[in-house]
Amino acid sequence: MSLVVKSISKNQQNESVLDNVSIQFEQGKIYGLLGRNGAGKSTLLNIINNRSFATSGEILLDGTSISESEASLNHLYLMSEDNLFPSFFKIKELFKITERFYGTFDWALAKEMLHKFGLKADQRFKKLSTGYRTITKLIIALSVPCEYIFLDEPVLGLDATHRDLFYSYLIEVYQQRLCTFVISTHLIEEIATLLEEVIVLHEGKLLQAASVETILQNARTVSGPKEIVEPYITPLDVLGQKSLGGSLTAYVYGPLPEEKIEGLSILTSNLQEYFIQLTSGKED
Amino acid sequence: MSLVVKSISKNQQNESVLDNVSIQFEQGKIYGLLGRNGAGKSTLLNIINNRSFATSGEILLDGTSISESEASLNHLYLMSEDNLFPSFFKIKELFKITERFYGTFDWALAKEMLHKFGLKADQRFKKLSTGYRTITKLIIALSVPCEYIFLDEPVLGLDATHRDLFYSYLIEVYQQRLCTFVISTHLIEEIATLLEEVIVLHEGKLLQAASVETILQNARTVSGPKEIVEPYITPLDVLGQKSLGGSLTAYVYGPLPEEKIEGLSILTSNLQEYFIQLTSGKED
Repeated sequence: MSLVVKSISKNQQNESVLDNVSIQFEQGKIYGLLGRNGAGKSTLLNIINNRSFATSGEILLDGTSISESEASLNHLYLMSEDNLFPSFFKIKELFKITERFYGTFDWALAKEMLHKFGLKADQRFKKLSTGYRTITKLIIALSVPCEYIFLDEPVLGLDATHRDLFYSYLIEVYQQRLCTFVISTHLIEEIATLLEEVIVLHEGKLLQAASVETILQNARTVSGPKEIVEPYITPLDVLGQKSLGGSLTAYVYGPLPEEKIEGLSILTSNLQEYFIQLTSGKED
Repeated sequence: MSLVVKSISKNQQNESVLDNVSIQFEQGKIYGLLGRNGAGKSTLLNIINNRSFATSGEILLDGTSISESEASLNHLYLMSEDNLFPSFFKIKELFKITERFYGTFDWALAKEMLHKFGLKADQRFKKLSTGYRTITKLIIALSVPCEYIFLDEPVLGLDATHRDLFYSYLIEVYQQRLCTFVISTHLIEEIATLLEEVIVLHEGKLLQAASVETILQNARTVSGPKEIVEPYITPLDVLGQKSLGGSLTAYVYGPLPEEKIEGLSILTSNLQEYFIQLTSGKED
């Protein structure tokens, strides 16, 4: 099964929200969809899942446009802030509605997760706190039989212990079913070890699509006295820099000169730091 | 001005949500209100701000119960997930409504924050993404003239750069006006340096109220070979422990024996780690 985002653009009130975005999602991988607030992440996820229309471009599942095939929606699931069900429903009723729509539902997993997170199937969705609403939606997302599961801000309002519990269930489901996960979150460092691929949206455009391995091999922090750092970084791709007194720290991307320079400290960057440099340096 | 939470209890559907909680908030301090999902944090904040009723107990502002004095509500502001205004309003209309209710409004700050966060006063609240809705509510919370400002999950959906920007505005407002902030969040380590006092709720009960300084002086991680760690921690207050092969790591709280023991590694804990140990160890 293949999922292709093909030249998607979206305009809203004369403003471009998405600009010619193309992505190919391989099956059986975990993707991080990263972007600043307002970058267009939720809009893209809504378009992929046929909840919103693109101004141009198309979403192809095994070569067929999803807008032309109702059945294809059975392979995709989007967990997002919007709730497509009446909020006065009980949790178990939400599970049943989901099962009816998707044909099957992993009741064993859903019940185990309810228990571990301290929820009861009889509780009404609208009476739940922010965190427990998120948990309910996560349980549904992991229990549907879909090949592509999109999670938009999956840990909104979750405490640290519950976040860890969710990440371990995500890995379990991923290993058992080899489905594709696409996760959009602002807590990047927490999920960095789960991700294989990263897609960065910035101001509606695709800024980068690369494996986490590639990024971590290429993203580095170079620091030292200004007069040594400056000539060293001149030929490099510099994402951002900070100076403090006579010293300079630069965030660079790409291969470094092989020659070792005295007085220069070169460290590997982490994914969140890289992302911050990548997306704040490009602001106007 | 003094704010006292006096023996607040709340029952809902025959379950105890809050159980005899008493807290004294001093003016001009920044408090962290910490607790697991479902601990009762939002319920407590709603009761303090007269949005929900307690089964018993009272909230006293300068000795007068807030439920008996409409005017006292002018001194308190709660930013929470619930929006008490129509969502089709424009941002600038929300600012005006707030000004009418509270008498004054810091327009200079609000305009500066709108600009820095990349929002426009003409945008309609309901058209905003999760992150930008939070930002709008934060701008209002920092621009009202209240002495006590309660922030329930203030960074929900905010990207890392926006979280940092918000924290710096919070400090600026705090230093200028010396108001009291009470912040409830699950991103504990991020705000640890902002907080002076910590209040921990657990399963509806007040588990701890202490200064961050006291906590960080008392919370420690003790690790080493099991046969050395075990006798060492026996007389101590052990919050939690993890063993791996022959080694044991224990999280302890309180003064340690002065005697140095060979082979034992004792490290200070951070606030988030301490909180996780404190609240997961006490679970049944």
